[in-house]
Amino acid sequence: MSPLYFEDLAAGQRYAGTTTARITADDIRAFAEKYDPQPFHLSDEGAAGSVFGSLAASGWHTAAITMQLLVASEFRPAGGIVGAGFDELSWPRPVRPDDELRVESDVLEVRPSRSNPRVGIVKLRTVTFNQDDKPVQTSVGNIVVPTRSGSPAADAPA
Amino acid sequence: MSPLYFEDLAAGQRYAGTTTARITADDIRAFAEKYDPQPFHLSDEGAAGSVFGSLAASGWHTAAITMQLLVASEFRPAGGIVGAGFDELSWPRPVRPDDELRVESDVLEVRPSRSNPRVGIVKLRTVTFNQDDKPVQTSVGNIVVPTRSGSPAADAPA
Repeated sequence: MSPLYFEDLAAGQRYAGTTTARITADDIRAFAEKYDPQPFHLSDEGAAGSVFGSLAASGWHTAAITMQLLVASEFRPAGGIVGAGFDELSWPRPVRPDDELRVESDVLEVRPSRSNPRVGIVKLRTVTFNQDDKPVQTSVGNIVVPTRSGSPAADAPA
Repeated sequence: MSPLYFEDLAAGQRYAGTTTARITADDIRAFAEKYDPQPFHLSDEGAAGSVFGSLAASGWHTAAITMQLLVASEFRPAGGIVGAGFDELSWPRPVRPDDELRVESDVLEVRPSRSNPRVGIVKLRTVTFNQDDKPVQTSVGNIVVPTRSGSPAADAPA
């Protein structure tokens, strides 16, 4: 698959994931111990009195797995996936042990950069689904994508 | 420090971090291999032709470290830090090997939940700074915080 340049992208395009990621209770605990050590991300007992009821993954863990799935997806811009920022990020339902996640990305908008003719900005909505096809994360990000006219890739700001 | 209830929170309050986190080149590579295996997050060589110029941490790594610092910060709502979603998330500059990060959070807005009198929504801006006091991440999140009247904490949806 050849890399995508700004000129290749248009609102309405959909890019699918190419793989899924299964998350275990051990994965959930290991991530949480390092980055989000709150009781509901560490054990069922710690989650019992919380809004989650039982062990749930940190939203940042879901976000990291989403990135892993996105990097492996059909959305492969030249220069890689470089986010200028997100307009939205939400976790409509928790990720649970043994969930199997996949992603799907839709191009919402494309626009040339005002300041740099070598790149454009692509607004991409990425939804992460669990094995029941229920969304566990929605994000709307602005990705910086090189223009074909402004490349070769070697022509980068150093 | 006693946990914070919705009634304790008000726009204009600032909550500081209580610690810092240093990130090494090995940390950057290990996170990227698992979650964001793009060349500019894996080596200086891989970053040379990219917008980053040299090794830079994945934004999701910066986000995870920010959560770690936030959980340890003075912002300690009863029931933990549970995000309903983000209105904004951006990485104004890359995190580099040996950067030392800290966080600072400002309450922008508080509002009762329309559907659930036991919780309120707190809009929190969290900025992550490097050792030169330059922002490396800005987020505006909506945190679900229990009301004192609607607690004890044991009174949770199970």
